[in-house]
Amino acid sequence: MKYVRNAWYVAGWAMDLEESTPLAVSILGEPLVLYQSGGVLAALEDRCVHRLAPLSLGRCEASNLRCMYHGLLFAPDGKVIEIPGQEVVPPQARVKSYPVAERHSWIWVWMGDPTKADEALIPPAVGFDDPDYILGRGQLDYAAEARLINDNLLDFSHLTFVHAQSFGSDPDFARVLPSITPLPRGIRYLRWIENTFGSSTRKTDVPMDNFMAYDYLLPGILLMQTGVFPLGTAKACDFGHPDLSRAVGSLSFTSQAVTPVTEKTARYFFSWGPHRNFGNEETRDGMMRVAAQAFTEDKTMIEAQQRVIDGSPDAQVMPTAHDKGVTLFNRLIASMVKQEQEEQLSKELERTVS
Amino acid sequence: MKYVRNAWYVAGWAMDLEESTPLAVSILGEPLVLYQSGGVLAALEDRCVHRLAPLSLGRCEASNLRCMYHGLLFAPDGKVIEIPGQEVVPPQARVKSYPVAERHSWIWVWMGDPTKADEALIPPAVGFDDPDYILGRGQLDYAAEARLINDNLLDFSHLTFVHAQSFGSDPDFARVLPSITPLPRGIRYLRWIENTFGSSTRKTDVPMDNFMAYDYLLPGILLMQTGVFPLGTAKACDFGHPDLSRAVGSLSFTSQAVTPVTEKTARYFFSWGPHRNFGNEETRDGMMRVAAQAFTEDKTMIEAQQRVIDGSPDAQVMPTAHDKGVTLFNRLIASMVKQEQEEQLSKELERTVS
Amino acid sequence: MKYVRNAWYVAGWAMDLEESTPLAVSILGEPLVLYQSGGVLAALEDRCVHRLAPLSLGRCEASNLRCMYHGLLFAPDGKVIEIPGQEVVPPQARVKSYPVAERHSWIWVWMGDPTKADEALIPPAVGFDDPDYILGRGQLDYAAEARLINDNLLDFSHLTFVHAQSFGSDPDFARVLPSITPLPRGIRYLRWIENTFGSSTRKTDVPMDNFMAYDYLLPGILLMQTGVFPLGTAKACDFGHPDLSRAVGSLSFTSQAVTPVTEKTARYFFSWGPHRNFGNEETRDGMMRVAAQAFTEDKTMIEAQQRVIDGSPDAQVMPTAHDKGVTLFNRLIASMVKQEQEEQLSKELERTVS
Repeated sequence: MKYVRNAWYVAGWAMDLEESTPLAVSILGEPLVLYQSGGVLAALEDRCVHRLAPLSLGRCEASNLRCMYHGLLFAPDGKVIEIPGQEVVPPQARVKSYPVAERHSWIWVWMGDPTKADEALIPPAVGFDDPDYILGRGQLDYAAEARLINDNLLDFSHLTFVHAQSFGSDPDFARVLPSITPLPRGIRYLRWIENTFGSSTRKTDVPMDNFMAYDYLLPGILLMQTGVFPLGTAKACDFGHPDLSRAVGSLSFTSQAVTPVTEKTARYFFSWGPHRNFGNEETRDGMMRVAAQAFTEDKTMIEAQQRVIDGSPDAQVMPTAHDKGVTLFNRLIASMVKQEQEEQLSKELERTVS
Repeated sequence: MKYVRNAWYVAGWAMDLEESTPLAVSILGEPLVLYQSGGVLAALEDRCVHRLAPLSLGRCEASNLRCMYHGLLFAPDGKVIEIPGQEVVPPQARVKSYPVAERHSWIWVWMGDPTKADEALIPPAVGFDDPDYILGRGQLDYAAEARLINDNLLDFSHLTFVHAQSFGSDPDFARVLPSITPLPRGIRYLRWIENTFGSSTRKTDVPMDNFMAYDYLLPGILLMQTGVFPLGTAKACDFGHPDLSRAVGSLSFTSQAVTPVTEKTARYFFSWGPHRNFGNEETRDGMMRVAAQAFTEDKTMIEAQQRVIDGSPDAQVMPTAHDKGVTLFNRLIASMVKQEQEEQLSKELERTVS
Repeated sequence: MKYVRNAWYVAGWAMDLEESTPLAVSILGEPLVLYQSGGVLAALEDRCVHRLAPLSLGRCEASNLRCMYHGLLFAPDGKVIEIPGQEVVPPQARVKSYPVAERHSWIWVWMGDPTKADEALIPPAVGFDDPDYILGRGQLDYAAEARLINDNLLDFSHLTFVHAQSFGSDPDFARVLPSITPLPRGIRYLRWIENTFGSSTRKTDVPMDNFMAYDYLLPGILLMQTGVFPLGTAKACDFGHPDLSRAVGSLSFTSQAVTPVTEKTARYFFSWGPHRNFGNEETRDGMMRVAAQAFTEDKTMIEAQQRVIDGSPDAQVMPTAHDKGVTLFNRLIASMVKQEQEEQLSKELERTVS
């Protein structure tokens, strides 16, 4: 799969990982078992060394995890520490363990070189512990490769078409190109829609300036701020970042994560909600209803697109003006994947030589 | 797939193609979108040039079709005529369009060389516009290759066995070989069953001569006339075509079409009903009930046959005396496919040279 | 598939094969039709020689089976004896027939060289005709290769873990290694658990010695005797076979059969019940309830194990002390498969030379 490995992938919602209950997840085609027990959070390869039974059918015992086929006991670092019926545990008896962290209500797993697993690289999502936002959350399983969902989120001109019935962006939205800036690990989008009555979740009685800015970060994390500002704000701030305290409505934040599960499936996590100065639980619930409809519209389109792609392996895409961000992000991934593969190769060469 | 391309394939029932509502169909493994809007009937490749989303999820706008992912607009000839956010439409931005026609209540699509798409080659099916017949209709999706359904319809000796509970043909039916004549684009069958009480839908109190004649035409169209005639008619007309006005009962017509959807799936369309001198809507409904049972019996057998074939790729068939028509028709297809491939090859060579 | 061919495989329960009703089964990936009609029991290749329709959709006529597609009639030895519409039946018109026998309530099919089909090799299972045992029965379809179920039954240390909630064997059970003896066509297990209150289906008020002995025979047949004996019996008989008449409770017998259906599916047949001196129908029903739960636990684990194996084709197993029987049995199969392939090769060479 053409995805970076040296990145923190969202494995699930922290609140869905119950104490002492192993949870099976797959990331980049690798089956993992997550568990939180005896004060540790662990992510192990989900495959017993003995006869390859999944450890996710196992039982937490203090900070360890027991395979429930023939009873091998694993420590959180992946080492086997007990084999029933056998005195000695051979030293090679261990499974891979992955760097894992809980942050911003998500469980993040580092899929690459463990020595590079820097928690400072976890994207600054807004979690349920944030005092400013009243959030709702959800997740969707896609029968489509993660790349197609990234592409979707990297080109919001689809709002006018895919989401004509939900977010209800008007044709003008698709005519205006956003400002796009490359970041070291992503792409920054900034978009002002001037003199508009807004789309479904931020309708206003009089025309306003709508602000929408997001970072799309590796491996596939969208962090977006939106808000309604007085007419003229866009020009006044030279189409840059406004003073958020000048918002007059609909200030909201959404965090979204796309995780490749297998080569052709993905899991999509999202939270969204109003700033507490511009809404309450009821506002949030209304936004989540619209989001539920809209994200189903995306899923329908993207899964259909995947089926077309699978049925026409030789068909080429034809990028348009709106694909600038898509192209930049995919190039960023391609160049990082290449670099990772070269590093991997030199490591293997070193090992062969020594 | 070993099917002819220069032929009109049935894509669907005309009455199922709603005005301004794109319809996805697949023929010979190619996904198509059909639509009727703004006075045109169009059949396009179902794959946007931009990011390969299916146009069948699109929206009709006058005689054009808009992709509802990022809004590209297609004319009925396949050309892109608008790209949101972009001034210029590159000339190569187009999808394939297919010759298409509505005739005899069916939508027909020409899958081969468009310059050869002669509407005179559309088989003379009996549609709902025919004043003489009172028809019912239906369609079935098969998890089997179209060829196996063709084979089934090219050897009616299966009526005695597969349809023992529905049409109820007696063992004599399977003992008698029909007269078979090759046509330029098909096979002609003629069969008299003399001195019989008939099968389920044409039972008589006294023995009669039963007539059954059909053409099986490329790409897989069955057009059949049946009727009950006075005892002695078969001999009187030397087992040839009778004067239909001499029929004493059960004069009926059925049109059937087999369309390859993918390599291992097919769609089967059928209409059937009495001549209005020999029946009414009630007669027709009774016939359709029997047909529903009988065509399900075929589907059960043929899909089971497909599973056996898939599980034993090396197994050979052993033709019997009844397979004459099957063999002739499959040879006709094989020789036409060969000819088409040679024409295709010379065209490509010409293009390379010039 | 790496399974022996010269062995009797269980195809089904004798009482499930209704008179004159063809039954489709698959063994070692080969589709078979079984039927009992006109006084014969037959097992034929389930594929008509004509157009490869399954004979299992056919109709029994006396001791013959008619294909219900175009009516070919097969004798129980596989020969075609009638082709409708055709005078002569060519001599090569025949399907393979398999040696088949009913014994101990099971239908057994010999999948190898018919000249070696010796009924004395049918394992001595306990059937419903046995006067001593009151049996219940069942079967389960596995989305897993038969080998994994064999492996499961060849290492009972899983009882402590997989069946913690059903049979409820305690941790000591998994700590003690059974005595294991190779047989010409299998492995013999003998296990005493001394001084125990027993597991769920043989709980006692005072500590006893529990006896458990089984043969695991080719191709995958488990025949097991269990019983509870007075404390000290194990030592008194030097941990060997006790005098069964000295049992004080829970004397029971189970016969189990694992049949490879396709490369990645299997069917598992089982009967179990108390000796009539130690239980009645009610005892049997209670045991079957526990078995239903336990065998579902196995199925859950083994199918999950299969999915892990499929997802990690390069992963290696790491045998433990409990795998002695597993290893011996798999070696036995491997050596017999090798021998069969060599015999097959010499036969083919002979045929080529002559």
